[in-house]
Amino acid sequence: MPARSARPATRKVRLPLAEVYRLLEPGPVVLVTTGGPGRPDVMTMSWLTMMEFEPPRVGCVISDRNHTFGRLVATRECVINVPTVELARQVVGCGNVSGRRVDKLRRFGLTAVAATKVGAPLLEECWARLECRIADDRLVEEYGFFVLEVVAAWIDRAREDPRTLHHRGRGVFAVDGELLKLPSRKK
Amino acid sequence: MPARSARPATRKVRLPLAEVYRLLEPGPVVLVTTGGPGRPDVMTMSWLTMMEFEPPRVGCVISDRNHTFGRLVATRECVINVPTVELARQVVGCGNVSGRRVDKLRRFGLTAVAATKVGAPLLEECWARLECRIADDRLVEEYGFFVLEVVAAWIDRAREDPRTLHHRGRGVFAVDGELLKLPSRKK
Repeated sequence: MPARSARPATRKVRLPLAEVYRLLEPGPVVLVTTGGPGRPDVMTMSWLTMMEFEPPRVGCVISDRNHTFGRLVATRECVINVPTVELARQVVGCGNVSGRRVDKLRRFGLTAVAATKVGAPLLEECWARLECRIADDRLVEEYGFFVLEVVAAWIDRAREDPRTLHHRGRGVFAVDGELLKLPSRKK
Repeated sequence: MPARSARPATRKVRLPLAEVYRLLEPGPVVLVTTGGPGRPDVMTMSWLTMMEFEPPRVGCVISDRNHTFGRLVATRECVINVPTVELARQVVGCGNVSGRRVDKLRRFGLTAVAATKVGAPLLEECWARLECRIADDRLVEEYGFFVLEVVAAWIDRAREDPRTLHHRGRGVFAVDGELLKLPSRKK
């Protein structure tokens, strides 16, 4: 499906797939976009985990009460967009209303741009964007748990200090603070 | 299995199970302890997600190359311990060596105390501790993905500013920084 805006993404460069885990392993709140019939939609999500480095696989839980659930099941594609603290208002806003009733991209001033491998749109305002396809749906019926494969990834390398959000429940978010560098022998 | 130390946990109080998501949803690095034959063991883990509020279910990925994998499969129990920044050295250390060769609790000065519902030990030095049992192992063979149910949870309420760690890969960790409170209509 075409995204709302035809203008190309700006300032974003392709991220090697082997680096995707460095975005999601820290547990940021993300914005999940879906395409399909009608306008593009977006939901806020915090229940996700890396499952494999390369090809990168991501596991996530989406309740069948969410509008996104049916759209993801139908199209088998989505985009995981990683916002930074500057988008905190939009992140909470997208979590508080349903795409069944509201054009969330319009309401929260988010710009859809075309992805390269999936029909769901990228969000121009986000620091990073991961194009995903469903890889395994065995646990969807019981837990709403989707295994996704990341098929293309984009990042804004111009952002020097991207600070992501970590939801602690009830509208409280911890923002990334200081960075520690410790000697690790592993990824 | 008895934990190494028989002394009871200090300063920890029971956390209502409905509050567990507030600990893990933000994506902290955790220390997973297992019991079973021989000394207790611990591994560092970042690939986990909440899957259900109550009873709290947690999904996590543990490679079958890790010593913990066989112990978890055999005992079907573990404890997810949530460390704060003060334990950063131990967190990285536990991720760099294998429990097959090293008594990691001894090497890193971590204290095992008895749990209440599982044989795996609690780590006294950690801010929070979640006693877990395997709830679903359908995706273990293919992805190393375990669905765990949290059956008891403990937290140190005396800690006023617990700052957890978020792994960005290659030994870089973001430490929790400022807190934002935004109006949310949802959990």
